[in-house]
Amino acid sequence: MKITKKRLAHIVFESDDWASKTFDIVLLFLIFGSILISILDSVASLRAAYGDLFWWLEWVFTILFTVEYVLRVWLSRKPRGYIFSFYGLVDLLAILPSYLSFFVVNSQLLAVVRALRLLRVIRILKLGRYVSEAEYLQRSLRASSHKIMIFIGFVVTIVLIMGTLMFIIEGPEHGFTSIPVGMYWAIVTLTTVGFGDITPATPLGQFVSSIIMLLGYAIIAVPTGIVSTEMASQRKKADRPKLVTCPNCGKDDLKPADNFCGNCGISLR
Amino acid sequence: MKITKKRLAHIVFESDDWASKTFDIVLLFLIFGSILISILDSVASLRAAYGDLFWWLEWVFTILFTVEYVLRVWLSRKPRGYIFSFYGLVDLLAILPSYLSFFVVNSQLLAVVRALRLLRVIRILKLGRYVSEAEYLQRSLRASSHKIMIFIGFVVTIVLIMGTLMFIIEGPEHGFTSIPVGMYWAIVTLTTVGFGDITPATPLGQFVSSIIMLLGYAIIAVPTGIVSTEMASQRKKADRPKLVTCPNCGKDDLKPADNFCGNCGISLR
Amino acid sequence: MKITKKRLAHIVFESDDWASKTFDIVLLFLIFGSILISILDSVASLRAAYGDLFWWLEWVFTILFTVEYVLRVWLSRKPRGYIFSFYGLVDLLAILPSYLSFFVVNSQLLAVVRALRLLRVIRILKLGRYVSEAEYLQRSLRASSHKIMIFIGFVVTIVLIMGTLMFIIEGPEHGFTSIPVGMYWAIVTLTTVGFGDITPATPLGQFVSSIIMLLGYAIIAVPTGIVSTEMASQRKKADRPKLVTCPNCGKDDLKPADNFCGNCGISLR
Amino acid sequence: MKITKKRLAHIVFESDDWASKTFDIVLLFLIFGSILISILDSVASLRAAYGDLFWWLEWVFTILFTVEYVLRVWLSRKPRGYIFSFYGLVDLLAILPSYLSFFVVNSQLLAVVRALRLLRVIRILKLGRYVSEAEYLQRSLRASSHKIMIFIGFVVTIVLIMGTLMFIIEGPEHGFTSIPVGMYWAIVTLTTVGFGDITPATPLGQFVSSIIMLLGYAIIAVPTGIVSTEMASQRKKADRPKLVTCPNCGKDDLKPADNFCGNCGISLR
Repeated sequence: MKITKKRLAHIVFESDDWASKTFDIVLLFLIFGSILISILDSVASLRAAYGDLFWWLEWVFTILFTVEYVLRVWLSRKPRGYIFSFYGLVDLLAILPSYLSFFVVNSQLLAVVRALRLLRVIRILKLGRYVSEAEYLQRSLRASSHKIMIFIGFVVTIVLIMGTLMFIIEGPEHGFTSIPVGMYWAIVTLTTVGFGDITPATPLGQFVSSIIMLLGYAIIAVPTGIVSTEMASQRKKADRPKLVTCPNCGKDDLKPADNFCGNCGISLR
Repeated sequence: MKITKKRLAHIVFESDDWASKTFDIVLLFLIFGSILISILDSVASLRAAYGDLFWWLEWVFTILFTVEYVLRVWLSRKPRGYIFSFYGLVDLLAILPSYLSFFVVNSQLLAVVRALRLLRVIRILKLGRYVSEAEYLQRSLRASSHKIMIFIGFVVTIVLIMGTLMFIIEGPEHGFTSIPVGMYWAIVTLTTVGFGDITPATPLGQFVSSIIMLLGYAIIAVPTGIVSTEMASQRKKADRPKLVTCPNCGKDDLKPADNFCGNCGISLR
Repeated sequence: MKITKKRLAHIVFESDDWASKTFDIVLLFLIFGSILISILDSVASLRAAYGDLFWWLEWVFTILFTVEYVLRVWLSRKPRGYIFSFYGLVDLLAILPSYLSFFVVNSQLLAVVRALRLLRVIRILKLGRYVSEAEYLQRSLRASSHKIMIFIGFVVTIVLIMGTLMFIIEGPEHGFTSIPVGMYWAIVTLTTVGFGDITPATPLGQFVSSIIMLLGYAIIAVPTGIVSTEMASQRKKADRPKLVTCPNCGKDDLKPADNFCGNCGISLR
Repeated sequence: MKITKKRLAHIVFESDDWASKTFDIVLLFLIFGSILISILDSVASLRAAYGDLFWWLEWVFTILFTVEYVLRVWLSRKPRGYIFSFYGLVDLLAILPSYLSFFVVNSQLLAVVRALRLLRVIRILKLGRYVSEAEYLQRSLRASSHKIMIFIGFVVTIVLIMGTLMFIIEGPEHGFTSIPVGMYWAIVTLTTVGFGDITPATPLGQFVSSIIMLLGYAIIAVPTGIVSTEMASQRKKADRPKLVTCPNCGKDDLKPADNFCGNCGISLR
């Protein structure tokens, strides 16, 4: 079987035959493999021991991903559209740093360039399309995203006011060095994360903190309520009984138990 | 077009024509701009670099907000009502500190006065009226606010008892210097924030803490349940179509658009 | 009006007339006042400044509560029943420490006795009966308490296993000095409180911690789901339409729109 | 009554008669007792005081559990199946370390072997079968486990990306020594645990942290929504009464106990 350009495009861009699925699965393993190597390479002790092996594997992955990138650009009907798409840029960012490391001599800058290579993990997002069951969650979240955005806006306003208030009350001597830092602290507190890197030291500051905490504890109910209601509504839609269409007038929301069409009055039995 | 007082009032107080909307949008940008400057000015390093620029911008905002404030007082039908309203006081607080800084010589006091200017962020709350979709959330929260207040009361009681108990058990030597501090710690713990600035050191204290934490983990379900139920109820109300009853057979779930009863076939028109 | 013993009992034990309500409200203020004094007295700086005032107020409250206690014992139909009831013991504990402080000379012990007086805050629980709206929440919680207990049992089992595991992995050198301490840490982590007083230091410990955290983050959905479902169910019960009783056979669950009784066939119109 | 092998198997493997239930209850107390001793033995101060007593009790439990293990292997129809089953291995692990401690001389290794004995707590999982009410929770969780797995996958992806990002932004000098550590921190933050052992120090790091926290605060709604919806659906299924359709007029919501159709009055018997 001669491999034509058309056949290659068929394999690279998802379709349902044997060769294309194999291509996808191999790519999947390559992505996971390159992520794993990036993660292990970031651990200083492992890097000291297996640095050379990691270096070789990085180049193997880089060359394979380069081949994939060139193929995608060459085979795409609109190469420019692919190059400037989100995944196109991610695919480029996944290979560029390795090549850049040739031209960089300064070791400080080299470390930054090497680190950029780690952004390859974003490619994992591409795997989303393999999970068909994720759709139900996505639909529920998308339907309630508008309400969640308003909620986030409300949270940001509280954070702004509370961060300013705590900056005035506690001041730089207790770690609240600026309003942005106060806002960071307010988010840490409102979301009930509570790192403890900055904590209120004055009685008034502790009182205001208590109010923020109780507020954060109470309003977490809001996004939960939004998503729960949305999911219940979507499930109800799926559970709803099949409706019958009138053979005479075409009215399409009759109940199976109806004897006569509610619109034209014809007998359905 | 000559600008009369009546025309100005029309523009300043929200209405739907072109000029009034432009006024609102300009005001919105001014509020965001003044907040941004206040935030940046609070960062010591930025203040050192751009302090003069911030000082000039602050005065530009102060003068524009002063013009707006004077206009609102002058154009309002009940000036006294506006001045002593919540937003009237906020508008005044947004400009007063800048003028006060002229008369204050003591640098310590000046810092406090400058800080007060940051309370201008409260004006952001005024933006709430631009978001019509926030109403659904507000209605759900208002409908369940009574139950949430009782829940907060219940939480405060637990906090009072647990704060006292931990003050007795752990005592000042482990950071629980007074009952208010114990209550602050109990809120930090019950809301699952957990700063870690004060932590139990005795086995008994750790045991009581564990109970508070499990309690806080379990009762977070209560506000969530309240809000979820309320939202589901409000959505059901909105989704429910008005139903018509058949005057012949009494079937009570006919749709308003039906021409004939789906059960007995009688004409409904 | 002469005050008889019967009349006094009427006032002291809750009833609906003017005198009894006044008695309740005065008692309420006394409880709040004594709690406030106890809280303020625990703050070292306030105690240094107003210690004498607090001492006098404490004795005023003690004497008034003693009068109330004696009245309740004297007026109760079953004095022994009251004395050994939960609130009877709390009422006694609220006054006993003040008297005990006469007989204690050792200053160390005196501090403990004084601290015991703070347990008076438990009396605040008595206020619960003034809040009729709390019933809905209580009913929902009681109906789901069985499921919540099983959930808590499940959480305790996880805590036991994870606490032991972390004690083995991290050991005393990283703060996990014993299994009970490991269990305390597991509760702190699973409930997402996260004090940070004890944290995993080994990679394996951090990996196991990550699993506990994700578990805690996911299973918080369980109590929330239980309470939400229970509340929705209780609300649905309240919303359900009124049912009609058949005048012939007494069947009591007919719908208002029914034309004939579903049981005996008699016409309902 | 002579105890045959068949009779013993009847007692050891759960059945409903008197002897078998007694065996189960005794075993239950032995498991709880051995766990309690293991826990107390891990506390250094208690071990110093009562170490000998704990040693004797450990051996009593070890011998009893050994007898139980031997009985189970001997009485089981498929001894090999039991030995290599999960609970078979746990039962073996519960007794093996005690015997191993005879052959180990090195005190360092001995401590590890002793610690292994603590894994006996896993046996507590066996108690699960005594709680019949746990089934409702299990069914709800199993029905929604697929969606929860996808959610966990989504969370892990966010953790991977955010951990890498924070490793690049903050770097080893602020505690983010490697990508795995960054991922551990991302989990600590996203789940709102917030130990505070590693915290962002740069403004950009604090900004990214704030986004992770708000994300974690918002998406906790997802598992809660999934479980709530699933539970509501399961409860509705249980609450729904079976309905009967009238053979004459087609009314489809008659109760099984009705004798006559509530709509047309025809006899249903």
